[in-house]
Amino acid sequence: MTSQVSDRSHGDRAADEPRWLDAEEQKAWRAWLYSTQLLQDRLDRELTHQTGISHAYYEILVALSETPGRMMRMSELADRCLSSRSRLSHAVSRLEERGWVRRQVCAEDGRGQLAVLTDEGFAALEAAAPVHVESVRTHLFDQLSPAQVAAMRDIGETLLRHLDPSS
Amino acid sequence: MTSQVSDRSHGDRAADEPRWLDAEEQKAWRAWLYSTQLLQDRLDRELTHQTGISHAYYEILVALSETPGRMMRMSELADRCLSSRSRLSHAVSRLEERGWVRRQVCAEDGRGQLAVLTDEGFAALEAAAPVHVESVRTHLFDQLSPAQVAAMRDIGETLLRHLDPSS
Repeated sequence: MTSQVSDRSHGDRAADEPRWLDAEEQKAWRAWLYSTQLLQDRLDRELTHQTGISHAYYEILVALSETPGRMMRMSELADRCLSSRSRLSHAVSRLEERGWVRRQVCAEDGRGQLAVLTDEGFAALEAAAPVHVESVRTHLFDQLSPAQVAAMRDIGETLLRHLDPSS
Repeated sequence: MTSQVSDRSHGDRAADEPRWLDAEEQKAWRAWLYSTQLLQDRLDRELTHQTGISHAYYEILVALSETPGRMMRMSELADRCLSSRSRLSHAVSRLEERGWVRRQVCAEDGRGQLAVLTDEGFAALEAAAPVHVESVRTHLFDQLSPAQVAAMRDIGETLLRHLDPSS
């Protein structure tokens, strides 16, 4: 949970020494990391428990639902969901078994595969969405002031400009 | 990535209707979720690439390094690392193979197992820490103003009081 070994000395850093976190940065980093992990864990558990859909699968359905024709190249879908190709392929196979997604060859160029959200998949997403949004409200927005929500967005967008310049 | 289906209507919510996110909340939630996922992914990839230690394994080593005697009950370690018992047991087995952790029966009550960080494990953590802290600096602290760091800590601590009241 931390970025440095606890009994390491902090004083008199030479030019080539690591830029250790100071006590304030350490507290900010731990609070962010731990709250983030707990929140993701809670949202995933509530969604899975109440709908049988993990948060990772939910994000795949959402990504497809927002595209024209409710379809996307497998490679783009993997990027969008920050998933490896093999992990996404496994997830899409599970979603195919439920009848929520089907694969088809890309008509545009005959190469590559598309993942297509079925009507059943869209209905499953519609049924799960109220459960998920209630969790997000309860564990995130109900806890924060409007100023904190604005700061959360500002921090998120600042980090995105660095981590995903194309966004 | 979102909490609602994209073409759902937002108007005239009845008392039992889901508390959908408005456009501003939606933007804040997406920025937070996506930046968080990208940051965790980047930190994990850099650490794994440069040290052969995943972020999840790194956190286990850190947790052990911070306890008296560098040891912890397996059950506590699982809680601390937000891991299921079976997933943690698997990870500890991998760390045992590297000689970084060993298991021993809890001397206090003869029941339960302790995970103990070995000197080799502590040395591996010491070697990995500068790599990890440089990633955290580069992708998080170097991107944020002091006011944003303070807000990040405030938001994290606010969420922790709700998600982990014992903290």
